[in-house]
Amino acid sequence: MDTLLEYIKEGTITSPAGFRATGIYAGFRRNPKRRDLALIEANEPCIATGTFTQNVFCAAPVQLCRERLGEGGYTTVRAVLVNSGCANAATGPEGLENARTTARIAAEAVGCAEEEVLVASTGVIGTQLRMEPFSEYLPLLHQTATDEAQGGHMAAHAILTTDTIPKECAVRYTSQAHGYEGCVFTVGGMVKGSGMIMPNMATMIAVITTDAPVSGPAAKAALLASVRESFNKVTVDSDTSTNDTCLLLASGQAAPDALPIQQDTAAYQEFCEALFAVCSNLARKIAVDGEGASRLVTVTVCGAATDDDADKAARAIANSPLVKTAVCGRDANWGRIAAAVGKSGASFRQEDTDIDIMGIPVLRGGLPIAFSEEEATHRFEQPEITIDVDLGAGACSTCIWTCDFTHEYISINGDYRS
Amino acid sequence: MDTLLEYIKEGTITSPAGFRATGIYAGFRRNPKRRDLALIEANEPCIATGTFTQNVFCAAPVQLCRERLGEGGYTTVRAVLVNSGCANAATGPEGLENARTTARIAAEAVGCAEEEVLVASTGVIGTQLRMEPFSEYLPLLHQTATDEAQGGHMAAHAILTTDTIPKECAVRYTSQAHGYEGCVFTVGGMVKGSGMIMPNMATMIAVITTDAPVSGPAAKAALLASVRESFNKVTVDSDTSTNDTCLLLASGQAAPDALPIQQDTAAYQEFCEALFAVCSNLARKIAVDGEGASRLVTVTVCGAATDDDADKAARAIANSPLVKTAVCGRDANWGRIAAAVGKSGASFRQEDTDIDIMGIPVLRGGLPIAFSEEEATHRFEQPEITIDVDLGAGACSTCIWTCDFTHEYISINGDYRS
Repeated sequence: MDTLLEYIKEGTITSPAGFRATGIYAGFRRNPKRRDLALIEANEPCIATGTFTQNVFCAAPVQLCRERLGEGGYTTVRAVLVNSGCANAATGPEGLENARTTARIAAEAVGCAEEEVLVASTGVIGTQLRMEPFSEYLPLLHQTATDEAQGGHMAAHAILTTDTIPKECAVRYTSQAHGYEGCVFTVGGMVKGSGMIMPNMATMIAVITTDAPVSGPAAKAALLASVRESFNKVTVDSDTSTNDTCLLLASGQAAPDALPIQQDTAAYQEFCEALFAVCSNLARKIAVDGEGASRLVTVTVCGAATDDDADKAARAIANSPLVKTAVCGRDANWGRIAAAVGKSGASFRQEDTDIDIMGIPVLRGGLPIAFSEEEATHRFEQPEITIDVDLGAGACSTCIWTCDFTHEYISINGDYRS
Repeated sequence: MDTLLEYIKEGTITSPAGFRATGIYAGFRRNPKRRDLALIEANEPCIATGTFTQNVFCAAPVQLCRERLGEGGYTTVRAVLVNSGCANAATGPEGLENARTTARIAAEAVGCAEEEVLVASTGVIGTQLRMEPFSEYLPLLHQTATDEAQGGHMAAHAILTTDTIPKECAVRYTSQAHGYEGCVFTVGGMVKGSGMIMPNMATMIAVITTDAPVSGPAAKAALLASVRESFNKVTVDSDTSTNDTCLLLASGQAAPDALPIQQDTAAYQEFCEALFAVCSNLARKIAVDGEGASRLVTVTVCGAATDDDADKAARAIANSPLVKTAVCGRDANWGRIAAAVGKSGASFRQEDTDIDIMGIPVLRGGLPIAFSEEEATHRFEQPEITIDVDLGAGACSTCIWTCDFTHEYISINGDYRS
C-alpha cells in the first residue's frame, strides 16, 4: 500500500527536525547579490550517506566525501558545507588539501571533529579554491544557521550556478509500520541543476535531510535506489560533471527513542517512498530549469524486452538533439523519435512499434497514422511535453526527463568565456 | 609504401571508366530548381557491394539492397537509382513493393534484369513514394546519362537534401602491384550529408565507383574497412538515420583483361588506400556541411588503452553539445572536453591526461596550464578546429570529425514542420 505523503508548503532541508541551515555571500561569485556559501548543520551527530559522479575527472570535494564515507558508504556527520562559484575540480593534490582545510575550518566553527564535515563545490573548474572566505565567514554561518524554512531557502540559493530558480521540497508522512506507529517523519531536499555552467562545467548537488531514524546501511540503500529512479533519469545535455554529489542526512529526531529503521522492513518501505517523492520532485525541477529550456519533456518507454533496453531507448530519445530541437519548434516529429529509438541498441521490431506525442497516436505498428497538426500544435503549448513509445517487445518500462534545445541553450553555452 | 594518389580536378563518379550518370528534377521536391532523381549506369555488368544503416527503423530501399546483395554482400549490377525528397521509410510492405517497382522501371529503361538495379532514397519519411515520376523520367535519364564530369555533377546535385553544397571527389593512381604494373586506376565518389533533414529525418547516401577490377569479396572487405575509418567517424548530431547507404561499384574497365584483384595482395592494398582517400575526403565534406555548422572539428584521441577506449573518448567529445556550443562560441573550453572524456567510459587516470586545443596546450597531467586567451581566440578563426587528447593509458588512437552547434542548427531543426 502506498504511503500517504503530504507535501509541505515551502518545504526545504530544515523541514525535518534536527537541522539548521543558512547561506551567505562569501565572495566566490562576482555578483555580491548572489549567495555562494551554504552550511547545513545537524544538532546532533547524524547518519550521512551519498552518491557521486562516475566521471574520471572527479573534483576534490567528491574525493574527500568518498574517503569520509569509507568502504561502507556511510558515516556520522555534524555538518555539510557547500560553495558555488568554484568547483575545486582539476586542482590536483593542492585542491584536495584545500577541501580538507575547508572541512577543518567548518569543524572549528561548528565544534565537531573535522571528519564530521562533508563538503561539496560547484562552479568554475581548474582554479584553486580561496581559503580566506571560509575562515572569515564560517563563524557567522554557524551563528546564523536556523531551523526555520528561511535557513533552508538561503542555503538552496547559495548552491545555485546557472539555475534560474532554487529547487527545494519536503514531504511528511505518518508511519503505520510496526514500532513506529503514529510517528510523523519528514524528508526535505534541495538541489542545483545539472546543466553545465559557464565558463567551464557544472554539477548536480543535492542535499537531502530526514528526521526518520534510518540506519546507515538502510540510508545508503534507500538513497541509491531513489537516485537511480530520479536524478539518474534526468538528462539535460547528456553530460555528467566532475562534481555531481547527492548527500542524505538522517537525524532520527522525529523518533529519538525508536530503533533504527533497517532494510526490508515496512518502515523502510515507507521511508523509501517518501525519499523517492522528494528526489523525483527535485529531478523534474532540474529538467524544467535546464539551460535555456522552454519545456519539460517526459519520455516514457514501455514494452521493452529488458530494463536495459527501456533505458537505452528512452535515453536515445531524450539525448537526441534532433528530438530536442523539434520540441523547441513545437513539431510532433515522430520520425526523429523513431530514428532515435532505432539506433539506441534496444532490441525490438519496427513493425511492433507505437509512438504517441502529447497523447496523440502518431505511429502504430511502425507506420505513421494521420493526426491533426492543429491539435498537435495546440497541445504543444503545454509546459510539459510527453513522448510515449511502446516497443512491443516485452514488459519493461522506464521514464526519463529532459528539456528542449533552444536558441537560448546555444547562447548560454556558446558565449565567449569572459 | 604509400600509393601515390592524384586528386582529379572536378573528380566525380563518372571519372572512373565504364560509368555514366545524370540527375534531373522529377517532381519529388517542391523546388523545381532542385534536381531530385539520379541514375548511375554501368556500361557492362559490374561488381556492387554496400554498407547500410544499423537503425532498426530501416527504409524500404535499404531492405531491397540488402536482399539483392545477399548473404555474400556483393552482386553484379548495371544501375543505381537515387531519389531525394522522399525517403520511402516507415512505409511498410507497400513501401518495399514500391522500391521493387522503381528498380523494375529503371531496369526496363536501362535494358537489364531488375535484380541488376540498386535503389536508394532520402527525404521525408512516412510518406509513400510516388511511382509516376519514375515511369515518366527513367527513359530520359537513361538517354541523357553521360560519362562526362557533368553527368556525375548532376547526379551529385540530385541526391542532396539540406546539404548546402554537392560533395564529390576522385583520385587516380598508377599500380605498381604484380599483374597490374602501369595500370591507371580511378576511384570516384559522391555523398550527401548525414545531418537529419526537415521535416523528418535524413540519411547519408554515398555512391563510389572505380574502374579497378576488384573482386566481389575484395570490394566488400575494402568498403567495410574504409567506411569504418571515414564515414563512421563523422558525427553531426549523434543520430543514425533510416536510410544510410554506401554503395561501391567496380567496373574493372581500366584493366579489362586483368585478373580480379583479391584480398591481401599488393594490388588490394593500393586500392584500399585510394578508396580510403575518397571516403575520408567525402566524410570531411559531410562534417563541414553539417546543418548550421560554422566549422569542421577534428577530435583526435591518442594514448588510449584500447581502440574501443579511443573511439568512446573521441565520440564523447564530438557528441557533447557543450563542446560543440563552446566551439561555436570560440571558447577554448578544456573543462567541457575533460568532462566529456571523463564520462565516456574509457579507462584512464585524470592525472595522466593532456589536452590541446588548436595546438595550444591547455591541460597537462590533469591540471590546467596558463595560455593566452588572445592567441586562442585568434586560432579559433580557422575553419578547422582541432582538439587533441592524450589519455596516457596506452598506444591506441583515433580521429573523429564533427562540426559545431550553432543558432542556425536550432533554426534548421527547430522550425515548424511545414
